[in-house]
Amino acid sequence: MTSAYQQLAARFQRISRFSHLGAIAGWDMHTMMAPGGSQARGEALAELSVLQHELLTDSKLGQWLEAAAQEDLNDIERANLNEMKRAWQQATLLPASLVEAKSIAGSRCEHAWRQQRPANDWQGFAANLKDVVRLSREEAQLRAEANGTSRYDALLDLFEPGMTSAKLDITFGELKSWLPDLLQRVVAKQSQHPLVQPQGPFAIGAQRDLGLSIMKTLGFDFQHGRLDVSAHPFCGGVPEDVRITTRYKDDHFLSAMMGVIHETGHARYEQNLPKTWRGQPVALARSTAVHESQSLFMEMQLGRSREFLQFILPQVTTLLGAQPALEAENFIRLTQQVKPGFIRVDADELSYPAHVILRYEIERALIEGEIEVEDIPALWDEKMQQSLGLDTRGNYRDGPMQDIHWTDGAFGYFPTYTLGAIYAAQLFQSVELAIPQLRDLLVQGELGAVFDWLQQNIWQHGSRFPTDQLLRNATGNTLDTSCFRRHLERRYLQA
Amino acid sequence: MTSAYQQLAARFQRISRFSHLGAIAGWDMHTMMAPGGSQARGEALAELSVLQHELLTDSKLGQWLEAAAQEDLNDIERANLNEMKRAWQQATLLPASLVEAKSIAGSRCEHAWRQQRPANDWQGFAANLKDVVRLSREEAQLRAEANGTSRYDALLDLFEPGMTSAKLDITFGELKSWLPDLLQRVVAKQSQHPLVQPQGPFAIGAQRDLGLSIMKTLGFDFQHGRLDVSAHPFCGGVPEDVRITTRYKDDHFLSAMMGVIHETGHARYEQNLPKTWRGQPVALARSTAVHESQSLFMEMQLGRSREFLQFILPQVTTLLGAQPALEAENFIRLTQQVKPGFIRVDADELSYPAHVILRYEIERALIEGEIEVEDIPALWDEKMQQSLGLDTRGNYRDGPMQDIHWTDGAFGYFPTYTLGAIYAAQLFQSVELAIPQLRDLLVQGELGAVFDWLQQNIWQHGSRFPTDQLLRNATGNTLDTSCFRRHLERRYLQA
Ligand SMILES: [Zn+2]
Ligand SMILES: [Zn+2]
Repeated sequence: MTSAYQQLAARFQRISRFSHLGAIAGWDMHTMMAPGGSQARGEALAELSVLQHELLTDSKLGQWLEAAAQEDLNDIERANLNEMKRAWQQATLLPASLVEAKSIAGSRCEHAWRQQRPANDWQGFAANLKDVVRLSREEAQLRAEANGTSRYDALLDLFEPGMTSAKLDITFGELKSWLPDLLQRVVAKQSQHPLVQPQGPFAIGAQRDLGLSIMKTLGFDFQHGRLDVSAHPFCGGVPEDVRITTRYKDDHFLSAMMGVIHETGHARYEQNLPKTWRGQPVALARSTAVHESQSLFMEMQLGRSREFLQFILPQVTTLLGAQPALEAENFIRLTQQVKPGFIRVDADELSYPAHVILRYEIERALIEGEIEVEDIPALWDEKMQQSLGLDTRGNYRDGPMQDIHWTDGAFGYFPTYTLGAIYAAQLFQSVELAIPQLRDLLVQGELGAVFDWLQQNIWQHGSRFPTDQLLRNATGNTLDTSCFRRHLERRYLQA
Repeated sequence: MTSAYQQLAARFQRISRFSHLGAIAGWDMHTMMAPGGSQARGEALAELSVLQHELLTDSKLGQWLEAAAQEDLNDIERANLNEMKRAWQQATLLPASLVEAKSIAGSRCEHAWRQQRPANDWQGFAANLKDVVRLSREEAQLRAEANGTSRYDALLDLFEPGMTSAKLDITFGELKSWLPDLLQRVVAKQSQHPLVQPQGPFAIGAQRDLGLSIMKTLGFDFQHGRLDVSAHPFCGGVPEDVRITTRYKDDHFLSAMMGVIHETGHARYEQNLPKTWRGQPVALARSTAVHESQSLFMEMQLGRSREFLQFILPQVTTLLGAQPALEAENFIRLTQQVKPGFIRVDADELSYPAHVILRYEIERALIEGEIEVEDIPALWDEKMQQSLGLDTRGNYRDGPMQDIHWTDGAFGYFPTYTLGAIYAAQLFQSVELAIPQLRDLLVQGELGAVFDWLQQNIWQHGSRFPTDQLLRNATGNTLDTSCFRRHLERRYLQA
């Protein structure tokens, strides 16, 4: 007889196969699709979402979940069952009408935003955003009732299960207590060394070869993935075939290069998720925040380290040619330059948390109903002034209209960027402790031991453990900003 | 109230959206997929097949089809209903156990064939092929009972609805009565002009640019499609985003160039299928044979014509450089060279029918139970000797093991190649009658009138009419070999 657990496993296997098709069609949409294919693709993917929702909310699942809880399961099966239950609850909680209304409002807001942002049209944008906020509040309310948490915490839980705004307030409060001062000191210190800027053009083909070469160094498995181009870099596809993207500018190679390193961090996590449980929820990445910790481990901890930069510099000059800007000390300073600015995605690792904390504070207040959409610009200006000393008044385009997240109603996502940065610093510190000769290995490009550590401590576990436990098993500690602070001080003040 | 017809239309719309995802994932598999993604992709596509089969064999469909037949429908809806019924009958007819057994036997036979063909291992291949034949006979038997036809005709009907072996015997009999003699005379005639062979290497980038340039000339819509590389050229994707492929050899550009022209013929048909009925069966291409008529119209009638070749020659020499082989008369002779050989896919248009007729005669006898797998080699040798004067004994690799069709049990497919060639000749003759100044226009690359004619007479009709009627409406005649004969005599004897 087939157990309830086996029924569930078969169902989630099926769902995972359809997700595979959605992931490839989604990747294709951003990398390959002819423009005229857009509407048909959107309809096909929407149809797939409907199907996935049907498969996940099928009434039999509730019965199977209850029955499976009584069955004799091993630890991994138990963890898998938890993840199944989580997915099922998240899907069944919302009435179809709300899901549809939110999807329509999100599409409309995002679509209009593509024109409104360049036009700096805050009024037009705000009108659409209000709808999205209203529906996101409804969603948050339903999720909050089910979880027994606040509204915002219920959204946060979608991206980092177990995270709360109480914990974030402490964590982000710590950052706010020392980061602005550190930032000022670093900017002052760096101003003593004028930078030589790289002189392009850098041929796209050579930049691509550089990216591929670094991916190889970073252990990307080309039997199970590829590198392509898209307007906005991402890591997509499926664990068996991970698709990362970047974008090239011929006058500036560093952004594409660092982007490739970042996405390779995401990719290695995906490629090394547990193979024996493939197709089951427990084999998926732990959370958005843990995913970001892997990309930032690769980009910030490893990729921008003096040692790694020394190692890859010959690849850079071989492919792009030597020039003064690419002499070792200048090259390192270029990649470690700290320069507060308006735009989150361009921010260095010292400024980045300020962008995130500002968004967190605003979106939490929005979802909790403490502020309304029209209050955003004044709050934005005030917080940018406080944290980064920048005047953003009237510049909506590079202010609250710069990101896509709110247009789609992805409230609760932003904190994962900085959580990822903090986790990454904690993980790197543990790697340093575990591998005493680490700095020497990095200079020689011998990264095997680092990747083995990540494989042992993070990748192979998929969603087997809650983030807290995963982190504690790996580092002996839960979320802790001190490693992040030590990392920043060491790299930016002491070097 | 929703009519039964509307219910059906919604269901087929849904099926079409899933087909979209399958088409893109299939294209990706042959063009982009990392090798390690193969198994997961196979499983995802198989899961999609199961879903499509469920959606199509759902018991409600039978009721809706019956009810819709009583509803007040216009001509197009009526034609759509016929196509729906056809799809439903084809899907419901076979027990799932047979579908699965055939799929497994086909996969096994094809998989082993990839090694057996280079090893010339007929015995190993024959053992697997017997299983495929046995299951194909079972399939044919069930379809034959439902259609009231012979077993082979029931399979033929899958690829060219309405076609019968009785008609094929007449048509192919006509070809056999004059083609061997014509072929001999053409070979003798061409032997008087020694050919200058092109000297490579021809850079892949330049070959690709040439392909893109010719696609533009041929009206390919790049807003709704693209050109990529695959091991075996094909036309895939969806009408909104048609994906054609080719393969490049750096010492030989003509095969890629003519391949692109061929696939562009398929692509223009897809891109111009009726937009208002998209998602419905009536908006699909009429048949495999009609599809091939469009690619062969482009490749054989247009693409290898002296006039078109004169027009594109400057594009060729601009991109690949001038050389003696690319002087006009030699270039034309290169593309019109007739040279009987072992391999169907390399055959010129005079030898091609012999390859097809031989396969038709063998596969029909196989399916009807008149011969067994072990009889194939002797028959093959005998027929190759008769039709092309070639000795193939012991050379299974370039004989009955050269094609993939039988490995998968696609019996009934081969005749569509030659039906397509005959249809194409009929269509081209009608175009010549409709556009008196055609030859002048071709020399100038002004193809608009030709494409308008195809749009009016073929593309826009999708599956609205049976092939016979489509052809009669377009040309005033049904299947008729005389145009094909006139075309070949004019091009190869009189030029
Ligand atoms: Zn990331
Ligand atoms: Zn074809």
